[in-house]
Amino acid sequence: MRASEILSHKRDGGTLSAEQLRFLIRGYLDGSIPEYQVSAWLMAVYFQGMTGKETGELTREMIASGDSIVLDRAARPYIDKHSTGGVGDKVSLILAPLAAACGVSVPMMSGRALGHTGGTLDKLDAIPGYRSVLDPERFAAVVAEVGFAMTGQSERIVPADRKLYALRDVTATVESIPLITASILSKKFAEGAEALVMDVKCGRGAFMKTPTDARALAESLVRTGASLERNVVAVLTRMDEPLGAMVGNFLEVEESCRVLAAPERPVAGFEIPALDDPRLADLIEVTLHLTAWMIVLAGKAPDHNAALSLARERLLDGSAYRAFCANVEAQGGSVGELEAGFGTRRAPLSEEINATADGVITEIDAYRMGMAGVDLGVGRNRAEDDVEPDVGIELFAKCGERVSAGTPLCRVYAVSEAALRAACERAAQAYVIEQDGGVVSLGSRIIEELHELE
Amino acid sequence: MRASEILSHKRDGGTLSAEQLRFLIRGYLDGSIPEYQVSAWLMAVYFQGMTGKETGELTREMIASGDSIVLDRAARPYIDKHSTGGVGDKVSLILAPLAAACGVSVPMMSGRALGHTGGTLDKLDAIPGYRSVLDPERFAAVVAEVGFAMTGQSERIVPADRKLYALRDVTATVESIPLITASILSKKFAEGAEALVMDVKCGRGAFMKTPTDARALAESLVRTGASLERNVVAVLTRMDEPLGAMVGNFLEVEESCRVLAAPERPVAGFEIPALDDPRLADLIEVTLHLTAWMIVLAGKAPDHNAALSLARERLLDGSAYRAFCANVEAQGGSVGELEAGFGTRRAPLSEEINATADGVITEIDAYRMGMAGVDLGVGRNRAEDDVEPDVGIELFAKCGERVSAGTPLCRVYAVSEAALRAACERAAQAYVIEQDGGVVSLGSRIIEELHELE
Repeated sequence: MRASEILSHKRDGGTLSAEQLRFLIRGYLDGSIPEYQVSAWLMAVYFQGMTGKETGELTREMIASGDSIVLDRAARPYIDKHSTGGVGDKVSLILAPLAAACGVSVPMMSGRALGHTGGTLDKLDAIPGYRSVLDPERFAAVVAEVGFAMTGQSERIVPADRKLYALRDVTATVESIPLITASILSKKFAEGAEALVMDVKCGRGAFMKTPTDARALAESLVRTGASLERNVVAVLTRMDEPLGAMVGNFLEVEESCRVLAAPERPVAGFEIPALDDPRLADLIEVTLHLTAWMIVLAGKAPDHNAALSLARERLLDGSAYRAFCANVEAQGGSVGELEAGFGTRRAPLSEEINATADGVITEIDAYRMGMAGVDLGVGRNRAEDDVEPDVGIELFAKCGERVSAGTPLCRVYAVSEAALRAACERAAQAYVIEQDGGVVSLGSRIIEELHELE
Repeated sequence: MRASEILSHKRDGGTLSAEQLRFLIRGYLDGSIPEYQVSAWLMAVYFQGMTGKETGELTREMIASGDSIVLDRAARPYIDKHSTGGVGDKVSLILAPLAAACGVSVPMMSGRALGHTGGTLDKLDAIPGYRSVLDPERFAAVVAEVGFAMTGQSERIVPADRKLYALRDVTATVESIPLITASILSKKFAEGAEALVMDVKCGRGAFMKTPTDARALAESLVRTGASLERNVVAVLTRMDEPLGAMVGNFLEVEESCRVLAAPERPVAGFEIPALDDPRLADLIEVTLHLTAWMIVLAGKAPDHNAALSLARERLLDGSAYRAFCANVEAQGGSVGELEAGFGTRRAPLSEEINATADGVITEIDAYRMGMAGVDLGVGRNRAEDDVEPDVGIELFAKCGERVSAGTPLCRVYAVSEAALRAACERAAQAYVIEQDGGVVSLGSRIIEELHELE
């Protein structure tokens, strides 16, 4: 077998066999196939795509490149959720404990903020004492004990993905649906997930800008999952404006706790209970919807409607928040110190942005808001940058809301004047206010769902 | 400027600027841009192509990567010919002295055999004492003295092409028309050619199998030449059966001399004068046609018809052969020793292949004949292999000729039994003889011509 023949076969639109993909990936990892051949293959895949079966074989080979986490069989099945990334996307922080409270075992492996999108690990790191990186043994123990655990990707899991991603990043081959699919699924299945709910975000603040692109990725994920005999449910959700009212690290943990703890132990400093706050309606809708799919995949409810009812019940009875707190303690954090910060942990410099005209907010550009977050230190431009825990943006109104000139739209929290200036300028540009009214309700955030469940 | 942005621009179908191409090529040569980015760019070019202007800028940058040969202004203009490679293609050996005899200055840079195609340098090396690699100063001196010189590509000329070609060879990006165009034109223009006649071969034994592909390359060559303000005439010629009657190194030199010396000093051992030999009609037609275009480009005749008459005249009056002999002596060879080998220098083992049925020869597959040549050592599979000077195949009949069962079709000359066996098996498979007659005349070898001359 020769690498150049594999390249010309893919270049000409052929389908590579499991043996050819194995030869390529193993050769890349052991150095026998040089990077310049791998990058040419990546570009050929960019143009010619891969079949579902082929993407499945690539995923399998990537999983085989490293360790897999072995979880206790007693608590099966293990279900995870993954999002393609958004702004204000704290869904995982609510969904994981809620699913656990509904009897689902959730081994969750999350990522860090990059570019305009936030990262669950950076948010978790804002919890005092929290250890967001666990070794595989401790990870398995926390899942067994609490029902869910949260960690970052270990060096030992899917090393092929790390190496391939770094190469894709510098060769303009990141935006390839089969390569994205294999990257996501290999990590999720290697960490122990047996089925997966995918939140494929779509819109201004998403990786996929159009429903067509988002649907193509969703289809690839479902089809590739099926070829590996794993159920994948893909839900296309809107990501045009930030999700919920907070964009930040600690700010988003606080908002998640507000939702989780709402009826039992309201978070200080907010007048309206979280479940009645219209700014949080999108966050709660998306979270409940995705959680319900995890419940269905785990066989803990007969259908999605029954699962939704169960999830609502566990949110209202406080058991989801208890699971959250149990996880914080199990991963080394302090619930007391965390709660002490609610309503008060804010970066020292802040400024409000006010509406400049009467009208209806028809756009809060999530991409611009995400980049304002990067200015502040919520996220990062380069993987090696540090983030700030207590900076961010609180939205006072969301799309569809009527405002008058002078109404506060949002407040920006920063640790430096320069960051505050840059972020405020960007955040102000995110708003479109239309005087003739425009659309008042944007309706559901759920665009479409794809799965192969019977 | 960042390489990854250049890659994504080309990937998305954009046109690169002269500055971007300069950044890429210089960065590749100085090591600041890694090979894996260059190979991804090559694959993106494979899929997205390049405009004529863009290909011209790439060509210019490749020329700038090394030295250019400076030729005496007095003998301007300098015209060269290049072929995309074929089997039995000894056109250069006849055309260069013939053009010189017509007053054209020809600085010819040739290549070596690779795969099924032969190489002019390997043929020249079969001339006793001949030095086929000249330094630029000696090359210029021979052109000035004899009217033409023949050499291989120096290390100092277009180093970017050598480096890029090696990378294309292992990344399945050889077959890209703009990359082929830039590779050919950069070498030709750097060696001092001011205008170029391209023999774009088309058919079984050619790099381009179909007229569509051959025409696309021809158009790219003409268009790119125009963007560099150089006249390029591209002639599509048939390469389905070998050109002429000989496939070999010394054998092809001998056949070339037979054509050149025909009326003045007939080569020993052949009953029919070369110009009357029907097996050589294709070779003579293609050679005269291409030579005439060189004469037109040099301004030595007002049009192609007048140029054809001039070329025929100089062939018949012996001046082309005198130019050939002057070049042999100027490049260190011995005409006496060369001529002493005519009709006798043949590898020791030989075997005839005979027709197995009555009928008309409708096919002599040039690719199979070329690969039989590789078996014998006429050519080579890998660039580092050696060739044999005195092996090869002599065709006794060509397509369109009527034969009976037992009629000798060709004779194979080899230096080992194993090579003889392998080559005879392959050569026998090259023939198709149809009993119901079939096409008797294949007509002209000239398919089409492209140029932008007024």
